[in-house]
Amino acid sequence: MSKMPETTFADLSLADKVTAKKSSIVARRFSDVSTCSFSSACFTETSDEDEISPKDVKQNNSHGSSDFCVKNIGKAAFGRREIEIAEQEMPGIMTLRKRAAADKPLKNAKIVGCTHINAQTAVLIETLIQLGASVRWAACNIFSTQNAVAAALAEVGVPIFAWRGETEEDFWWCLDRCIHNEGWQPNMILDDGGDATHLMLKKYPDYFKSIKGIVEESLTGVHRLYQMSKAGKLTVPAINVNDSVTKNKFDTYYTCRDSILDSLKRTTDIMFGGKQVVVCGYGDVGKGCAEALRGQGCIVYITEIDPICALQAAMSGFRVVRLGEVIRNVDVVVTATGNKHVVTRDHMNRMKNGCIVCNMGHSCSEIDVSSLHTPELTWERVRSQVEHITWPDGKMIILLAEGRLVNLSCSTISSFVVSVASSTQALALIELYSAPGRYKSDVYLLPKKMDEYVASLHLSTFDAHLTELTDAQAKFLGLSKAGPFKANYYR
Amino acid sequence: MSKMPETTFADLSLADKVTAKKSSIVARRFSDVSTCSFSSACFTETSDEDEISPKDVKQNNSHGSSDFCVKNIGKAAFGRREIEIAEQEMPGIMTLRKRAAADKPLKNAKIVGCTHINAQTAVLIETLIQLGASVRWAACNIFSTQNAVAAALAEVGVPIFAWRGETEEDFWWCLDRCIHNEGWQPNMILDDGGDATHLMLKKYPDYFKSIKGIVEESLTGVHRLYQMSKAGKLTVPAINVNDSVTKNKFDTYYTCRDSILDSLKRTTDIMFGGKQVVVCGYGDVGKGCAEALRGQGCIVYITEIDPICALQAAMSGFRVVRLGEVIRNVDVVVTATGNKHVVTRDHMNRMKNGCIVCNMGHSCSEIDVSSLHTPELTWERVRSQVEHITWPDGKMIILLAEGRLVNLSCSTISSFVVSVASSTQALALIELYSAPGRYKSDVYLLPKKMDEYVASLHLSTFDAHLTELTDAQAKFLGLSKAGPFKANYYR
Amino acid sequence: MSKMPETTFADLSLADKVTAKKSSIVARRFSDVSTCSFSSACFTETSDEDEISPKDVKQNNSHGSSDFCVKNIGKAAFGRREIEIAEQEMPGIMTLRKRAAADKPLKNAKIVGCTHINAQTAVLIETLIQLGASVRWAACNIFSTQNAVAAALAEVGVPIFAWRGETEEDFWWCLDRCIHNEGWQPNMILDDGGDATHLMLKKYPDYFKSIKGIVEESLTGVHRLYQMSKAGKLTVPAINVNDSVTKNKFDTYYTCRDSILDSLKRTTDIMFGGKQVVVCGYGDVGKGCAEALRGQGCIVYITEIDPICALQAAMSGFRVVRLGEVIRNVDVVVTATGNKHVVTRDHMNRMKNGCIVCNMGHSCSEIDVSSLHTPELTWERVRSQVEHITWPDGKMIILLAEGRLVNLSCSTISSFVVSVASSTQALALIELYSAPGRYKSDVYLLPKKMDEYVASLHLSTFDAHLTELTDAQAKFLGLSKAGPFKANYYR
Amino acid sequence: MSKMPETTFADLSLADKVTAKKSSIVARRFSDVSTCSFSSACFTETSDEDEISPKDVKQNNSHGSSDFCVKNIGKAAFGRREIEIAEQEMPGIMTLRKRAAADKPLKNAKIVGCTHINAQTAVLIETLIQLGASVRWAACNIFSTQNAVAAALAEVGVPIFAWRGETEEDFWWCLDRCIHNEGWQPNMILDDGGDATHLMLKKYPDYFKSIKGIVEESLTGVHRLYQMSKAGKLTVPAINVNDSVTKNKFDTYYTCRDSILDSLKRTTDIMFGGKQVVVCGYGDVGKGCAEALRGQGCIVYITEIDPICALQAAMSGFRVVRLGEVIRNVDVVVTATGNKHVVTRDHMNRMKNGCIVCNMGHSCSEIDVSSLHTPELTWERVRSQVEHITWPDGKMIILLAEGRLVNLSCSTISSFVVSVASSTQALALIELYSAPGRYKSDVYLLPKKMDEYVASLHLSTFDAHLTELTDAQAKFLGLSKAGPFKANYYR
Repeated sequence: MSKMPETTFADLSLADKVTAKKSSIVARRFSDVSTCSFSSACFTETSDEDEISPKDVKQNNSHGSSDFCVKNIGKAAFGRREIEIAEQEMPGIMTLRKRAAADKPLKNAKIVGCTHINAQTAVLIETLIQLGASVRWAACNIFSTQNAVAAALAEVGVPIFAWRGETEEDFWWCLDRCIHNEGWQPNMILDDGGDATHLMLKKYPDYFKSIKGIVEESLTGVHRLYQMSKAGKLTVPAINVNDSVTKNKFDTYYTCRDSILDSLKRTTDIMFGGKQVVVCGYGDVGKGCAEALRGQGCIVYITEIDPICALQAAMSGFRVVRLGEVIRNVDVVVTATGNKHVVTRDHMNRMKNGCIVCNMGHSCSEIDVSSLHTPELTWERVRSQVEHITWPDGKMIILLAEGRLVNLSCSTISSFVVSVASSTQALALIELYSAPGRYKSDVYLLPKKMDEYVASLHLSTFDAHLTELTDAQAKFLGLSKAGPFKANYYR
Repeated sequence: MSKMPETTFADLSLADKVTAKKSSIVARRFSDVSTCSFSSACFTETSDEDEISPKDVKQNNSHGSSDFCVKNIGKAAFGRREIEIAEQEMPGIMTLRKRAAADKPLKNAKIVGCTHINAQTAVLIETLIQLGASVRWAACNIFSTQNAVAAALAEVGVPIFAWRGETEEDFWWCLDRCIHNEGWQPNMILDDGGDATHLMLKKYPDYFKSIKGIVEESLTGVHRLYQMSKAGKLTVPAINVNDSVTKNKFDTYYTCRDSILDSLKRTTDIMFGGKQVVVCGYGDVGKGCAEALRGQGCIVYITEIDPICALQAAMSGFRVVRLGEVIRNVDVVVTATGNKHVVTRDHMNRMKNGCIVCNMGHSCSEIDVSSLHTPELTWERVRSQVEHITWPDGKMIILLAEGRLVNLSCSTISSFVVSVASSTQALALIELYSAPGRYKSDVYLLPKKMDEYVASLHLSTFDAHLTELTDAQAKFLGLSKAGPFKANYYR
Repeated sequence: MSKMPETTFADLSLADKVTAKKSSIVARRFSDVSTCSFSSACFTETSDEDEISPKDVKQNNSHGSSDFCVKNIGKAAFGRREIEIAEQEMPGIMTLRKRAAADKPLKNAKIVGCTHINAQTAVLIETLIQLGASVRWAACNIFSTQNAVAAALAEVGVPIFAWRGETEEDFWWCLDRCIHNEGWQPNMILDDGGDATHLMLKKYPDYFKSIKGIVEESLTGVHRLYQMSKAGKLTVPAINVNDSVTKNKFDTYYTCRDSILDSLKRTTDIMFGGKQVVVCGYGDVGKGCAEALRGQGCIVYITEIDPICALQAAMSGFRVVRLGEVIRNVDVVVTATGNKHVVTRDHMNRMKNGCIVCNMGHSCSEIDVSSLHTPELTWERVRSQVEHITWPDGKMIILLAEGRLVNLSCSTISSFVVSVASSTQALALIELYSAPGRYKSDVYLLPKKMDEYVASLHLSTFDAHLTELTDAQAKFLGLSKAGPFKANYYR
Repeated sequence: MSKMPETTFADLSLADKVTAKKSSIVARRFSDVSTCSFSSACFTETSDEDEISPKDVKQNNSHGSSDFCVKNIGKAAFGRREIEIAEQEMPGIMTLRKRAAADKPLKNAKIVGCTHINAQTAVLIETLIQLGASVRWAACNIFSTQNAVAAALAEVGVPIFAWRGETEEDFWWCLDRCIHNEGWQPNMILDDGGDATHLMLKKYPDYFKSIKGIVEESLTGVHRLYQMSKAGKLTVPAINVNDSVTKNKFDTYYTCRDSILDSLKRTTDIMFGGKQVVVCGYGDVGKGCAEALRGQGCIVYITEIDPICALQAAMSGFRVVRLGEVIRNVDVVVTATGNKHVVTRDHMNRMKNGCIVCNMGHSCSEIDVSSLHTPELTWERVRSQVEHITWPDGKMIILLAEGRLVNLSCSTISSFVVSVASSTQALALIELYSAPGRYKSDVYLLPKKMDEYVASLHLSTFDAHLTELTDAQAKFLGLSKAGPFKANYYR
């Protein structure tokens, strides 16, 4: 399910942003890691950072440049290795880099980027540069930056402004440094959450006018763009890559199939065989979770509000129940709805001792965690991301990641999957930049043919060989031999 | 894949119909059983029918009526039992019958129906009558009628004109008898292939003007409607139920998952474990086949032309190959593409001894069967629907159903799945009939909400319990508690 | 489960045989098709045989021989084709035939055979002949003979005495004709049920003394042999091939995985997706059924008496229940226990309308069918092997094969699986015949190495390539490079 | 495969033990964690231990006792919590504790224990005490002790002598402290590897004479016992729990199914979908790995030396290949053979860039790791347990756990599975202790009935309900209603 709350962002004054930031999180999807949904930091980097702000420290990279702001330029070598490892698992974006490097399709593009900063996005950033673009980059989230990767980018001359643990003020300062820089006026935006777009529109309206296109990755940002478009304020073309086929029908299912198992194992060492699990929601996330858990020997129940998804679950061999019917018996509760308060305090009161509760859905409110903050319950952190919450009678439940997205907090996202998304973003940027007349000031989906191209870039990883239509077959089907092979609505 | 050939039907003169009928078959989908794709008759009824045409025999039912034309009214009791058995597996249409019987939403509707005539469609027909409609019915296919079922309908007073083994002339005569009957002017059409629509438009244009709506089931018929619409000749609203979610994403996958195994077993008694199978095409048909075969221990290869489907296959654990790469090694070849000549004579020359070849796709031309009619090859029918074709060197391949749809020829379709489709058709008729202003003269998809309603009618079969949104959740999601729960494009 | 009833056969007088025959059936395993468990005839041959006994008809084959007694020698050509088709799916026995044909390891062996007579056993019989043996053959079951196959064997000169529908008297007459024939004294027995052994011991004790070995296929026959051995009456070595690894851990699981789906489909056209099924018993039969049904989207429950099997079921993701807990809700009940009255009248009283009941286990008493023969219940045969049994309130259950083995009655056994068993039998005969000193007058299991050899004969079918140990590895493991690779008890 | 090397242990002098220790490791099975196979320490405890030996530190527990030797008694509280968490996942041993606590079946038993020291074995130790035993305990492995758990045991008065990082000398000192203690003469041994048995026999032969029984857990220890028995030196009864059904057919499969996925994820974050994996060996370990990987979307190949296992693999839908045939194409190589040098340097030379290699088998020599220590290859540790080994041409392979058992090094064993093993050990001790006449001086397998009892103790975890035989059914089957339900050889 991918419904959006009806809050509007576009008209908020900057003064309201701090609060808005919090509520916006609710709507953020999978890749929209934010205060609420992200803590995987603790798995890979130490949290005991010192207190001096990077803004107050003067650093140069080895080429003498200081046009960046990162935590510690000294970590560049380590970050570079992480980037190199990521490159090996990102065949699509690397192939794109090679194929288009000679053409330089982004020559003279000046891109402001505002995304998570990690090894995978670094591969994207460096690809854009190799395709001819100059870029300036900030983090879209104050907690998710991999400092060593930021350092590695800074070391090779990328003007990057990002560190883990930025304040809200830092966040806007970094973004401002990206947009506004003497002698460099941006003409493209790659956004994840809509903040770069928002800031430029509000503070640098003249810059905004010369923007050739916006590529937006997140549900929230896409929502903001549609609001702008509806309000007549969107004066540039934008591509919504959040709803591209490869992302929706594809990354989600395959990613969740892996990460539900991984998240549960790393946190609880649970043995899967014979465990009774209820998965709330049978959209793509729920489908991935349910299949993976059943594959490992769990007995899986499904809850659904949508009769079509419910019927799919039933015919796929899952019992479709209401949560209250099974809550006393299940060993694990997984939410995957995008809805709020799917698991209530009342449900948790009735869970059996040792029940594990976690959230794979799109918001951090699926489990009503706040209802657990009452005096009679004892909270105890037994491992990173794992709380034991104990009732007065001794019954204990195990809450993962405090109800935030467990796949982001307690597992990792494979570079391969990010490669699909990154290739899509790069192609969207190229499309908007190189075909200026084709798109009007509206929000577009990526053309089907490009979705297909992105998919084709990733087939070599699997040594998969595509069949080519003969002329006669293409004619019979009324298709071009180069695709697109399906209607836009086909999923 | 659901692409359509670019042939046009709407402008054909009646004189051309006989030929057109044959070529139209190419485009007919799953439920569009036709000369080309249907032979399951031989599994349930004897073929040695006598030579006297039902048109030349005077029959009355036990109430004295003779407003029908069927093979043998004496078989009514047997047909009635088949209908009763079907009713038990058709919860959706039966629930609809009960719920709406008091309202009579089709009161005064006069429906011309032209569909396959079998136990399941009989349940639909009798439901429409109970909802208030009067009907006249013909078969959409000259080979697919279950004579006993037709007799049972005639016995209870349904004016039905259909028998197995009609001539082309019989076909049009039957349809004419449905449309044109003194004192009864049709105002609705339920069509499967577009022939009722076509005949009425050409021969009874005055009747056509007073039609309130057309519901069309088949890909071919839908194609004809879109052509008419494009040409400005569609003067009534029509609903395309061929592309409803429940049908596409749902029936196809679950139906094929069962019928590929059943078709292969009933014809060849093959042991599945360890067999190497190549499935050509990884759309919904191919997905169902591939999953089912792997589940029984086959090693499954996939061929694909579309990189997105290919990537799905790869990430689902199937090797994606070109047919030529595996053709020498596989034990079974299954086509599921909608394309033509996917399996060529050259492929068949290279198959190993005993290789089974069958077609689960949408046309009877996926396997180039005609290329096998050469003098050096020996054909031998070893069982119904099973040919051994032997090369001069003794190599033999096993061709099922002469390359026609093996799921229709060598397996059966479950009543449950037909119930979903029938409920959709009934609802579409009600929608068009009872909301005359809502639809213009165009081709519509069924509203999402109705798809959801059809699904909900079938949940009880599985004892599946739907979760209801709380007010707060509905508000959070921006949804009505009654649905629709997803955007129209969601699949 | 493979427990045996405590009845004893060996000492029964011939006068008691008719009754004993009936009770012995209880204990017959999978391949022991008998009056009780076999009716698949009706799927392949017409039952309206005329009334003249083959014993009263004089027939010659085309070479002038009349040393046989079959239904109709004229059907030989058809039977030959069935044998040829079987040969293609029996790689093991065919390879054995080729490899050993030059050596003639059974030269001068004179084998009395008493087995089912069908295409697959014909392949075995003709292999034994090619390996040098002369044979005389009778059917071990009065209902299971494929008459055309018997004719084909007679046509090529095999002295075969068997037809479908023998009387008890015919049965013993046929067997007598095999054992006692002027100028031909048997020295080996291949038995399936122990009747050839029994008759020779009782009626021709002098012949019995010169027997070099007995190979016994059935649980019942093996039981009789162990009884004889215990009683000191077994004066020749015997090999129990019923308990060989390949048969138990192997054929059963893979065969049942296919045949449960096939049996249900051919009889009821059930759609599997979402159906709730209870499988009684989680031995190898139950495991095969449960996995296959789950793979097709069923929700499967297990009942078990043995906590080890129950724990396996639980950890494999099946709910382990008592039958009474789920009997009101399930759509299908499958028995696979070897036990009796697992499904009682009380259970059947509580089943829901339309529930399907069938038996995959080892006896025909698992379902208490006799309890259904009460006046208030209506029995109606709706298809071959399918009864609708209706309660006074209209509730109806669907009983398959009248409670006999549904896999034998309503499905087919693949030739491939029979090939494994036949190869084992042939090897056992060779072993006993060619190594006269090695075995004493006792019942032996086939040596592990021969089990491994039989398996290896079947690998080519799957293009499976075995890895060979290096000298160093063999030494490290303390194994011969040629096997055996596992201890005898390893399963 | 569970073959043993032909080395003999029993006669080794103590002086040879250090070397023997190393070679014995080769034969140690799954739970036999040793120098070679264990490094999971690094996942849970810091390695920077100080240098002072616990032997040189005087510690008292809070009750004033100093009859123990652990790293740091101050960590007792933390260890106690780990024990409590383990208790929740060990239903069998906890139920046994409750049921037998009143009877005190081990009253006056004086047990010397020598096992791994972790939370799960602590639950076993405390259960034995509650059943009436007094115990003294040492670690069977110098690297595997959880120091905090040892502290918790010491705190409640268990005389325990164990810490992580013992020297060989420490090891024997600890064991000596357990066996030899004034006023306490042992009468039972629970051994894991045979060292306690060995030391007592060699150094305290008088004590050994009064031993009532030995329970041995490991393959190595069992092997030593059989050697002793063969040599006539075994003067007490012993139970081999290593070969109990629950352990072999049960723990292995279900444990490996989880741990292969977990091991690969935690170390490499690999995405499973579409990855090509070769699993060497299709015994229970290989079966578990292959099923789990296929379930997550991998394409799995199998190598086998045993044709029976190979045929099972083939019929289960896996391609059976020789390693050389696929080595160039696979993404992951998993060994599960028990054999040595299954993966050679030559294989590794031909692997593709990024190929992951790991060992799930029974010894640390399955991958020829030593062959990789050549000058032209570069080793780089990129994470704990993960080495990148790079060829001169830049090709890199990823070696996990340096070829030791990856399931022990990079994953965790669930308490549930240990509960099954622990219950078996406890029952074996009770059996030997309480039925002194029943067993002679030989090595016994646990009676089938006890295997069944252990299984039954664990059913409640899954809310699994066992079916009870009726009297009539028990009689029919010739079984006691209380079991055993299968023959001893049934697996």
